[in-house]
Amino acid sequence: MEKLYVVKIGGNIIDDEAKLASFLKNFSSIFGASSSSRGRAILVHGGGKLATRVAEAMGIQQQMIDGRRVTDAGTLKVVTMVYAGFINKSIVAQLQARDCNAIGLTGADGNVIQAHKRIHPTIDYGFVGDVDAVNAGLLNSLLQQNIAVVLAPITHNNEGQLLNTNADTIAQETAKAMSALYETELIYSFEKAGVLLDVDDEASVIKEINPSSYTKLKEENRIFAGMIPKLDNAFQAVGSGVSKVIIGKAEQLQQLIDGSAGTAIINQ
Amino acid sequence: MEKLYVVKIGGNIIDDEAKLASFLKNFSSIFGASSSSRGRAILVHGGGKLATRVAEAMGIQQQMIDGRRVTDAGTLKVVTMVYAGFINKSIVAQLQARDCNAIGLTGADGNVIQAHKRIHPTIDYGFVGDVDAVNAGLLNSLLQQNIAVVLAPITHNNEGQLLNTNADTIAQETAKAMSALYETELIYSFEKAGVLLDVDDEASVIKEINPSSYTKLKEENRIFAGMIPKLDNAFQAVGSGVSKVIIGKAEQLQQLIDGSAGTAIINQ
Repeated sequence: MEKLYVVKIGGNIIDDEAKLASFLKNFSSIFGASSSSRGRAILVHGGGKLATRVAEAMGIQQQMIDGRRVTDAGTLKVVTMVYAGFINKSIVAQLQARDCNAIGLTGADGNVIQAHKRIHPTIDYGFVGDVDAVNAGLLNSLLQQNIAVVLAPITHNNEGQLLNTNADTIAQETAKAMSALYETELIYSFEKAGVLLDVDDEASVIKEINPSSYTKLKEENRIFAGMIPKLDNAFQAVGSGVSKVIIGKAEQLQQLIDGSAGTAIINQ
Repeated sequence: MEKLYVVKIGGNIIDDEAKLASFLKNFSSIFGASSSSRGRAILVHGGGKLATRVAEAMGIQQQMIDGRRVTDAGTLKVVTMVYAGFINKSIVAQLQARDCNAIGLTGADGNVIQAHKRIHPTIDYGFVGDVDAVNAGLLNSLLQQNIAVVLAPITHNNEGQLLNTNADTIAQETAKAMSALYETELIYSFEKAGVLLDVDDEASVIKEINPSSYTKLKEENRIFAGMIPKLDNAFQAVGSGVSKVIIGKAEQLQQLIDGSAGTAIINQ
């Protein structure tokens, strides 16, 4: 089976022009035409602060519940403009300039990611999507043409409604779907060097976590509580066909791939 | 040779939600999965007024020279957001809902349309692109997967710069490039029912114009001056492999295709 990397980058990279350019340079050297290994990759990007700035300029009030943006019709318009328009196309243009052929898509394009509007007993998140299905066939046809796919965190419900969708979830569901066709590794980039035993010490990265060591670490309260949902998701991915989840700094992409940095979550 | 339709819609349709929905319904019935003929199509859309409204809200001053927007860095950001983000993805989501698989691209995506920043002896149009090359191979691979391609009027220079590009030009260059692979017809939609002998009489549509009748019509001053650049471009297209250019109302898409409405520009 060929290898595929699904790489998720978040707002901390998107918001910093120099960091983003440096990341895309590394990404291109690994996945572009000049790479000797010429791996295949899907890049999933989050949103960043530009959407908030544009919404403010347009007089659209932002409401957050549990760290998630409540997406009313005006906010959906803004995030579609910013995520699918400006951020996605800026990334694609920069990759092209570095000889890494890339194509930027939302979930609506080629019906790549179908979702439904989130159903919640008490909170109406607005036009927020939870993923139902990933169209691995179309993604595969692009990857096989040596094209890196750049996914914006916007999906659709196949009934004409675009939906704002969490980029971590898109990365995870995409990696799971692609694992039927590729030996798929999922890389979550993040502010820290990996899962740390001591949150204040970047040198305390745990190199590898498997289900039994995870149980033990949790029993001993050695995992920072904020990491537990991320790790639960990672174990869900490796339990659903993804061969490995790697958590670490986007700045260390090559090292995350070759195993010399970050935390690897494995299923054995 | 298989048939391909390159259809350009402009601001008058984009700005009118009901008209756009009705156009996309017709487009899907002709090119979607439920169509018996199941033709292949590329839809090129223009911009419309939303970009101006967003720019105003964001305090970005708009400057026009000869009917073309001067694209400074702020304006480029806005048109990328509006054209490649909101408009393109809204069209794609609506087509998906009508069982017409579609994928929305800018010129940067898959290097589909490469351009250069316009060189002009006296006017600096800013980040405006003139088309150099269309990647017919990638477009063909999508069309052959029964996907309609929806092109936003944004290109790139392959050096990381996105460029605002005239949608008529994108449609024309795309049709010319695709005519190597398909019997390609280019449909320019427009406010009028076609090229009129009397601008005030919608019934005076000229059914067909070829080079010799065009010369004659011009000699007799029977063509409205404003139509001449459009017609010159149309003749340039049919002189470069496009089998026919059809000019007429977007509302009459089926009739433009079957020849019962609009003006056909042909090369014989």
